[in-house]
Amino acid sequence: MRTYIAVIGAGECDPETERLAYTVGREIARRQAVLICGGLGGVMAAAARGAAEAGGLVVGILPGSRREEANPYLTVAIATGLGEARNALVVRAADAVIAVNGGYGTLAEIGLALKMGLPVIGLETWEIGRRGEQDRGIIPARDPVEAVELACRRNTAGRYS
Amino acid sequence: MRTYIAVIGAGECDPETERLAYTVGREIARRQAVLICGGLGGVMAAAARGAAEAGGLVVGILPGSRREEANPYLTVAIATGLGEARNALVVRAADAVIAVNGGYGTLAEIGLALKMGLPVIGLETWEIGRRGEQDRGIIPARDPVEAVELACRRNTAGRYS
Amino acid sequence: MRTYIAVIGAGECDPETERLAYTVGREIARRQAVLICGGLGGVMAAAARGAAEAGGLVVGILPGSRREEANPYLTVAIATGLGEARNALVVRAADAVIAVNGGYGTLAEIGLALKMGLPVIGLETWEIGRRGEQDRGIIPARDPVEAVELACRRNTAGRYS
Amino acid sequence: MRTYIAVIGAGECDPETERLAYTVGREIARRQAVLICGGLGGVMAAAARGAAEAGGLVVGILPGSRREEANPYLTVAIATGLGEARNALVVRAADAVIAVNGGYGTLAEIGLALKMGLPVIGLETWEIGRRGEQDRGIIPARDPVEAVELACRRNTAGRYS
Repeated sequence: MRTYIAVIGAGECDPETERLAYTVGREIARRQAVLICGGLGGVMAAAARGAAEAGGLVVGILPGSRREEANPYLTVAIATGLGEARNALVVRAADAVIAVNGGYGTLAEIGLALKMGLPVIGLETWEIGRRGEQDRGIIPARDPVEAVELACRRNTAGRYS
Repeated sequence: MRTYIAVIGAGECDPETERLAYTVGREIARRQAVLICGGLGGVMAAAARGAAEAGGLVVGILPGSRREEANPYLTVAIATGLGEARNALVVRAADAVIAVNGGYGTLAEIGLALKMGLPVIGLETWEIGRRGEQDRGIIPARDPVEAVELACRRNTAGRYS
Repeated sequence: MRTYIAVIGAGECDPETERLAYTVGREIARRQAVLICGGLGGVMAAAARGAAEAGGLVVGILPGSRREEANPYLTVAIATGLGEARNALVVRAADAVIAVNGGYGTLAEIGLALKMGLPVIGLETWEIGRRGEQDRGIIPARDPVEAVELACRRNTAGRYS
Repeated sequence: MRTYIAVIGAGECDPETERLAYTVGREIARRQAVLICGGLGGVMAAAARGAAEAGGLVVGILPGSRREEANPYLTVAIATGLGEARNALVVRAADAVIAVNGGYGTLAEIGLALKMGLPVIGLETWEIGRRGEQDRGIIPARDPVEAVELACRRNTAGRYS
């Protein structure tokens, strides 16, 4: 069964973040993994474009009820009409999650993924901690290629451990 | 944008119903439409197989949280973990719905689709009415080919009217 | 544990249907059961008013994300932001369902409740069948008092059988 | 309209955290606000008990589909069957959120609440930041009384600003 990797991040972002997301998407496609995202703009669109241009399969799970809101790089767009609750679907559908920068919605998805026991790889994303001590749940990656490598490896590891 | 057609029906069914669902799936693929289904067995698996064998794109939206429960004919399997609430997603994701026979879950999806204003085509499925008078919401089809034809036409009509 | 009974029906209805729903709500409160509804107008508001005026506990599970849309007779209003998918919550939260007249949304909830194995009592509501034969899933009631009586009894029966 | 305050935190916690949650619940009830929680143990049960013993109205929104899983301090228990996706409902239903300590599920709810623009008050909970700089989204409280005070005030402020 193909690996499903969710790429999460903000709906609007700077060019540098877009470059990171684009490369993450491209690497996911190169490894024949399925890219899951929220289907909108910013990090979601950049990752989707990267995967689509590399011939990958891209799924967008939209918060609204109209497919027209989707970015143009999706193989399949699922309009849910669930609003923010759709975040749980993006994470649930994946075997591993890569967070690229991101806002509060991304933080919510990171929390959900960690709660569900999925590997969460971070690229310039949230730092979380308690009582002044950093939490080690988010696995940091130096660059997009390492992020996808870690997502695939961790997932496999998870499968067999 | 490609048309998305949901095929709904029971998770277990007789061979005759399977044949109907298989042909519906095949016709959907031949018309380059995307097939949405619940991802499990019975009508869902038969329609998915019909579309897959005709080279179509098939999406399964699963009630459980494990992709392993999906039938083997899906291009993409979305594990939702939402239980019965996932029925609303199958319908919401589609432009038109074809009901093949089916049980109470199918009845729920028919109601949701009619509530959302989607065309609902019926093949040997539920008859609904009130005060002894039949409700005309479900558009009856004589055979699978006509069902898909009606689903595509109605949808287009809906688009432009 | 108190019994939870969902009253389902259209958001707009005629005075006669309102009277039925009002009495259903009142009887639910008199039996110390909790009334669950969709929180909006029509049958939902009439049943909620009936229960509230009899001192009952009334919960409204709203499709939108703003509590301000709720009718004024609820003890608790839950804004879900899930749209039509909230129908599954109204049914899931209940031990038994009473359908009063109703539209396509009500039909969807009837299907979900039957699928979940909940007793469904009908008051002038949908008639469902297949191949010209009526389906016996919906238990018909002659009047609101009998409807609530059946809902409570069936639920208890279900509990111990 | 009464204020709805969600108290979020882990399903298992130490006695000190339980004491904090209990007092938060009690203060919410004393201010006539409605307490929303996830309906299970740990912080959820302690806050619910605090509110119930002060005569407050307590709503539990459960992840599973069986009301029997609820803690015994709820006025109303809503079984959703949505799994982790029910977290979005706990937050959506509230006007303000108080996070007491908590695990990854709590982190997810904090992210959702901030995304939805709700005030989030923190009691010994997650610290979040980016690029080594703390994010100011979570409003820190010194003790339970201040937490509830801030939740009510912020909410009112939010209403009128």
